[in-house]
Amino acid sequence: MIATLSDIESMDKSFRTNLINHLSGAKAVHLMGTFDEQHQSNLAIFSNVIHIGANPAMMGVLFRPVGADSHSYKNIQANKRFTLNQIPLSMVQQAHQTSARYPLGKSEFEAYGIEEERISEFDGPFVKNSLVKIGLTWEEEHLIKSNQTILIVGKIQYISIQDSILLPDGHIDLDVAQCVSAGGLDTYYQVKKLAQFPYAKVLADASHEPRRNS
Amino acid sequence: MIATLSDIESMDKSFRTNLINHLSGAKAVHLMGTFDEQHQSNLAIFSNVIHIGANPAMMGVLFRPVGADSHSYKNIQANKRFTLNQIPLSMVQQAHQTSARYPLGKSEFEAYGIEEERISEFDGPFVKNSLVKIGLTWEEEHLIKSNQTILIVGKIQYISIQDSILLPDGHIDLDVAQCVSAGGLDTYYQVKKLAQFPYAKVLADASHEPRRNS
Repeated sequence: MIATLSDIESMDKSFRTNLINHLSGAKAVHLMGTFDEQHQSNLAIFSNVIHIGANPAMMGVLFRPVGADSHSYKNIQANKRFTLNQIPLSMVQQAHQTSARYPLGKSEFEAYGIEEERISEFDGPFVKNSLVKIGLTWEEEHLIKSNQTILIVGKIQYISIQDSILLPDGHIDLDVAQCVSAGGLDTYYQVKKLAQFPYAKVLADASHEPRRNS
Repeated sequence: MIATLSDIESMDKSFRTNLINHLSGAKAVHLMGTFDEQHQSNLAIFSNVIHIGANPAMMGVLFRPVGADSHSYKNIQANKRFTLNQIPLSMVQQAHQTSARYPLGKSEFEAYGIEEERISEFDGPFVKNSLVKIGLTWEEEHLIKSNQTILIVGKIQYISIQDSILLPDGHIDLDVAQCVSAGGLDTYYQVKKLAQFPYAKVLADASHEPRRNS
């Protein structure tokens, strides 16, 4: 299929939503935990998480335009903290269910049977069974003028990683961790390791073929 | 492993770089094509691509702080256009090699044996063998103050998708497409489909257990 701008603009809405959401490829998914002002926890799945930088250690999350249901966003505005939790393979369907428009009044942890963890080192609700748990504080945010989405950039204050998936050089084995990625809004994928390559250097003679076995 | 902010700040630099780059999970990777002012092509791998919105159809890319080697960024400033190309499984090592600091003077397409495609519908260099090719125009950009990285938001003007991976409802089968994701800066993963769930609705009785077989 070939589509130009006018083709894209005249597509069936559901078809376009699915298609454009898939163009960015398989997106890592996380469960975001926040507290409201009464310290009640909220949990929601996010697939638009981005690495911002390693030093200072920062990550970004893209939020939909703010509306009545923007509980996670409003909680972050209130107390400047959030958690990102890796989604265990066994919890994919529960995680997907957190995308429902759940009315305030009960935590998604409780509603969907996801065990909550509170710790002394960081004041945010974590998913107890996640192999990777990250605590972040609000650092800055940017309004995307084109569609009113909002990028929140957070500074990493706390990391908990299960030792079995952490390698001595700081890599996380995403294969052993059974890392879950999403295609579009409703399809989930598991990752399988293909290859690890050395830091790419300019080839001595790059005029014809790249090194294939270095 | 548990790490607080002071632990993170005192980590070995290489360990921290690997670790923090892995926290966002498996990231979809793309090859970005740009033209310089002489219409010479440039190609570089990017793992920080994000879905911004479906209508208008937009994607974002996070760039490192601008320096002497920021060819892709400078090319976009010059002519406001870029392409994102899915990385075929067979080209992963060549794609990784494009991250080398290659001196200007020869296109990475030519240097690494990646076939370039130019088309009449969009003025940007595409990777001929990619199953998904996207042409975008610069729409807005945001400087992340915390570390001087830059988010460029592009509007999708052109899409080419191989028919064999496009489903009737607009989904792309990322499994059949052999979608490649990256962990950190040097490790590559293939995705395998796990499940597709219906649009999440609030459960009639969400007080105890989520639906498991719906």
